[in-house]
Amino acid sequence: MSAVSNGALTPEHIVFFENLLGKQFVFTDEESLNLYAHDETEDIHFLPDVVLKPKTTNEISAIMKLCNRDLIPVTPRGGGTGLNGGALAHLGAVVLSTERMNAILTIDEWNLQVITEPGVITEVLQDAVKEKGLFYPPDPQSKGSCFIGGNIAENSGGPKAVKYGVVDDYVLNLEIVLPNGDIIWTGANVLKNATGYNLTQLIVGSEGTLAIVTKIVLKLIPLPKYDLLILAPFNSAEEACASISAIFMAGYVPSAVEFMERDAMDWTLKHFGNSSVNINANTQAYLLIEVDGNNMDVLMKDIEEISAIIAAYNCGDILFAEDIKQKEMLWRLRMSIGEAIKSRSIYRDEDTVVPRAELPLLLRGVKQIGEKFGFKTVCFGHAGDGNMHISIIKDELTQEQWNGQVKEGIREIFRLVKSLNGTISGEHGIGLVQKEYLDIVFDQTQMNLMKGIKKIFDPNNILNAGKIFDL
Amino acid sequence: MSAVSNGALTPEHIVFFENLLGKQFVFTDEESLNLYAHDETEDIHFLPDVVLKPKTTNEISAIMKLCNRDLIPVTPRGGGTGLNGGALAHLGAVVLSTERMNAILTIDEWNLQVITEPGVITEVLQDAVKEKGLFYPPDPQSKGSCFIGGNIAENSGGPKAVKYGVVDDYVLNLEIVLPNGDIIWTGANVLKNATGYNLTQLIVGSEGTLAIVTKIVLKLIPLPKYDLLILAPFNSAEEACASISAIFMAGYVPSAVEFMERDAMDWTLKHFGNSSVNINANTQAYLLIEVDGNNMDVLMKDIEEISAIIAAYNCGDILFAEDIKQKEMLWRLRMSIGEAIKSRSIYRDEDTVVPRAELPLLLRGVKQIGEKFGFKTVCFGHAGDGNMHISIIKDELTQEQWNGQVKEGIREIFRLVKSLNGTISGEHGIGLVQKEYLDIVFDQTQMNLMKGIKKIFDPNNILNAGKIFDL
Repeated sequence: MSAVSNGALTPEHIVFFENLLGKQFVFTDEESLNLYAHDETEDIHFLPDVVLKPKTTNEISAIMKLCNRDLIPVTPRGGGTGLNGGALAHLGAVVLSTERMNAILTIDEWNLQVITEPGVITEVLQDAVKEKGLFYPPDPQSKGSCFIGGNIAENSGGPKAVKYGVVDDYVLNLEIVLPNGDIIWTGANVLKNATGYNLTQLIVGSEGTLAIVTKIVLKLIPLPKYDLLILAPFNSAEEACASISAIFMAGYVPSAVEFMERDAMDWTLKHFGNSSVNINANTQAYLLIEVDGNNMDVLMKDIEEISAIIAAYNCGDILFAEDIKQKEMLWRLRMSIGEAIKSRSIYRDEDTVVPRAELPLLLRGVKQIGEKFGFKTVCFGHAGDGNMHISIIKDELTQEQWNGQVKEGIREIFRLVKSLNGTISGEHGIGLVQKEYLDIVFDQTQMNLMKGIKKIFDPNNILNAGKIFDL
Repeated sequence: MSAVSNGALTPEHIVFFENLLGKQFVFTDEESLNLYAHDETEDIHFLPDVVLKPKTTNEISAIMKLCNRDLIPVTPRGGGTGLNGGALAHLGAVVLSTERMNAILTIDEWNLQVITEPGVITEVLQDAVKEKGLFYPPDPQSKGSCFIGGNIAENSGGPKAVKYGVVDDYVLNLEIVLPNGDIIWTGANVLKNATGYNLTQLIVGSEGTLAIVTKIVLKLIPLPKYDLLILAPFNSAEEACASISAIFMAGYVPSAVEFMERDAMDWTLKHFGNSSVNINANTQAYLLIEVDGNNMDVLMKDIEEISAIIAAYNCGDILFAEDIKQKEMLWRLRMSIGEAIKSRSIYRDEDTVVPRAELPLLLRGVKQIGEKFGFKTVCFGHAGDGNMHISIIKDELTQEQWNGQVKEGIREIFRLVKSLNGTISGEHGIGLVQKEYLDIVFDQTQMNLMKGIKKIFDPNNILNAGKIFDL
């Protein structure tokens, strides 16, 4: 443990945890600790002193009561797929994993609601409600391994957000354990609520700094029956982005509008040895556009009209996915960009978001900033809602350049984002690695409000302390 | 001024306000003060000492700085259409009306956003964006006179919420003045945001107790081209409610599902001398169901299938609105229920909300509680999202009964709501008149968190003090 003001974890604490949870759910061996020392963030690594795997809300409450009394830092953790270091125990001490709280408690078909524990894998939850003809739309790239609890913590999004919204649009009510061990529900299981302050939405996106989520009530919607998918190449990345606003202005709301720079496509095809997409020499970027609904004739008409709209933006030959296999192939390409880039070079992913019509300006600015500071970027993301992932490629850069001019460049990108009325994270959160940039988007007054709220929930600053901001 | 701990409003303060705003925007005469002494809540009345009508954010900031320094209570006020007394100066002192901040600043067709001041009438805003083919769905009953700022304060809903969500689904960013006069934005103008705590949603629904909203950035969506409307009579109110869940389970999401008990319909028809709806002797309740979208064939098919679904719930002959005139007539009937009840008797409107499949149980329970405590209720509301307005009719009840057994009955209704996983306000808020019931839905821990948040924003407790809860 590194922070001076924190209490020390003692053998007595370990005995308490073992008595509470059973010895088999308290881990102090090097190998286990190492498994919980990293997430999907670049190359950072922090070893906890102990990993706890509670099964119940009451066990978490008991853990928190003790840790609060003895000022022991607790880092809550979901699937470990985060991109900001938020699930890492940078102060050592306790990692509290929710992996054993993995039951879907109720799928209420009459009320279109699901009640779940936080340790359920997002895709497992989606599949379970799909079997009942229901739909939980938020689908982060890591949906095959991330936890629904982590999605709540980060207010995750994904490709469907452009039509269906992000996690916060689906969370109705949360059971939470406060840092002092108290257990409360944040709201009610209702679609509208004007009763007191919105504690539910204060917890969503708070990155595990205010409370540990132990039960989740989500709204579901009817599952749309059909979808269609096209891949459209553009000779200019800026024009690809500009065409997106035209789609919405014409009255269409696609269920996905994903943007990929040519490099992202090239690298991903190469990574998979896939040659199913013919790349024209002039192509600079792609849009992957999906529409969904219950009437195939309407969808066919919509996709034709969307194709006509983007044709005005120097769009090349559109690839129409003929069957489920081709759709899956295109989605796999899009969702594997991160993996493909990672296999090629160390990189940092910046999770910028701007009003969607500002995307061409953002893209142009990012390239200029990259040139100025000497780094290469590959851009891709959920362009339909203005959320552009900017991958900064390390390649041949020295560690000094990586920690020096690259960081300066990131500051300049974020200042540009701010000037375009955007912000520095759309769906990944701030955690540990982005907090140094928070001053770009928040002034002292805003920071003081957030810190004040943190102190109300966690006066001893023991729960995921030092994430988002330092107190 | 009644509260001992508050500072006294002096002639010097009035001079300051007059210098700041101009004499013509500072009102201390009896007649003007009386205009601001009531809202649409029952029969309560509180005279302020002064009414201020600032035009700019900076003027509001200057007012708050002074009032914060001298501990003078400030009650912010929108259109004065609230139903909980939240805009009333129950401590006297300052009413701050936003009526002069009534400019729509930007309608951004490229980003589907509108930036507006808080004093714009909701319907004026809706019509302005409609002219551009855009849609701002939340439409409270009072939309012809309420302000968009007040809608933010109460997290308003309305009939369209069942498909399109409530105010909080459309608010992207807010400029606010804090009680100490500081001016901040709460977020960014983006569709997704994982950057720090969600201050935006903390302000939405906070009933003017945390800050004064001075600019509002709202998301817009494309305006659907067509809608269809039916009025369906049922022989049983409970069966009418039960049929609603069946509609959603079959995969349909209507743009409105409004419920009316027979009394509500009878009284409203009589109030308007309207005989255009034939009432069958056996009819106990109605559903008004709307679908909307861009393809008329699809809508016709949807409404036919919805009609077939509800037929299984003892639904009588369905009235299909043939033209815009008939649609407007039906909507006017629904939206005038409150007015019709008011013209007949003093009444209290309880704004209950439950998961929608629980509506039959709620309705049965409300009638039983009314019988037990000797009062009549008329129920109507946004049944599609479980939001049932329960009008308790005073009629011949004595004032003693009204303040005694009726309040006991309300507590019992709210306990029932809570037991059904619902809550005591879906869209009206708590304000002054509902705060005595808050203990039914929140325990001490939840209350302490909310009070803690209030103190962070308003340490001197000068802004709409004593609304929602007492500190």
